[in-house]
Amino acid sequence: MTDPIRPTDDEARAMARALLDDARFGALGVLDGGVPMVSRIAVGTDAGGGPVTLVSSLSAHTGALRAEPVCSLMVGEPGPKGDPLTHPRLSLHCAARFVERQSEAHAALRARWLESHPKAKLYIDFGDFGFVAMEVQGAFLNGGFGKAFRLTPQDLGLADRPRTE
Amino acid sequence: MTDPIRPTDDEARAMARALLDDARFGALGVLDGGVPMVSRIAVGTDAGGGPVTLVSSLSAHTGALRAEPVCSLMVGEPGPKGDPLTHPRLSLHCAARFVERQSEAHAALRARWLESHPKAKLYIDFGDFGFVAMEVQGAFLNGGFGKAFRLTPQDLGLADRPRTE
Repeated sequence: MTDPIRPTDDEARAMARALLDDARFGALGVLDGGVPMVSRIAVGTDAGGGPVTLVSSLSAHTGALRAEPVCSLMVGEPGPKGDPLTHPRLSLHCAARFVERQSEAHAALRARWLESHPKAKLYIDFGDFGFVAMEVQGAFLNGGFGKAFRLTPQDLGLADRPRTE
Repeated sequence: MTDPIRPTDDEARAMARALLDDARFGALGVLDGGVPMVSRIAVGTDAGGGPVTLVSSLSAHTGALRAEPVCSLMVGEPGPKGDPLTHPRLSLHCAARFVERQSEAHAALRARWLESHPKAKLYIDFGDFGFVAMEVQGAFLNGGFGKAFRLTPQDLGLADRPRTE
């Protein structure tokens, strides 16, 4: 049996980076009492290119992330045509970090988010909404059948991001 | 703070059932060494309406499901227009059950799968591909902002499914 993982090259790095940059939503996997739970979340990036989401504290995934920050985020949505399993997608292994609402980081994320998600102006300032930064620890790129790659944060250009808690 | 979960009604049951019946792919969340991992899988149904997937043994999620069958499957893909977070989606809490390739169950699933996924004829008989039935244990329907429901297998019409291992 051959190893289905190919050596990472610049084409794979660029595809992964584009999938993350272009994502407006994605599938989040969290631990809910030790059991996986997948839900849809909005996805954007911070100024350093790291994935960010805007979530409500009323959502089940928000409570799960507060209890257990380890999570998985898949981005790369198929279009309406073709075999969806040949469409590239990127699964990120992440640790969630909640952003304080009164912080400068929040203000910067808010301005950036409204550029990529203009409809969020309807609820972005609701008291139960807040940003969660996803600190990427590794990634798996599936570029279609037979095109799988394991990527590091560095491969996504995230090498120099500060890790703050 | 009000409870965001509404009482389940027939409209919610019908919406959930339609999301599952119409799904051709979805986001699978598995445990990978105790950590969530989300990937895209093909989705269909068996004759009883339960979710089924066709996976390769070369895929990371297949190995993870063999080690730990508990998983989450999200179906309900947004179209190209509108706010994707207002598009309904259904998250199923499941236990994966691998289907023997030489069984009658496999033959029935194979015929049904080729009707809903005609392009799968290119690889359905490859030695590394096989069916996994997802035994639904519960579900969460997000019908858009403020329209959340918890559903039982019975709500999805899955009450009478045999549980065989």
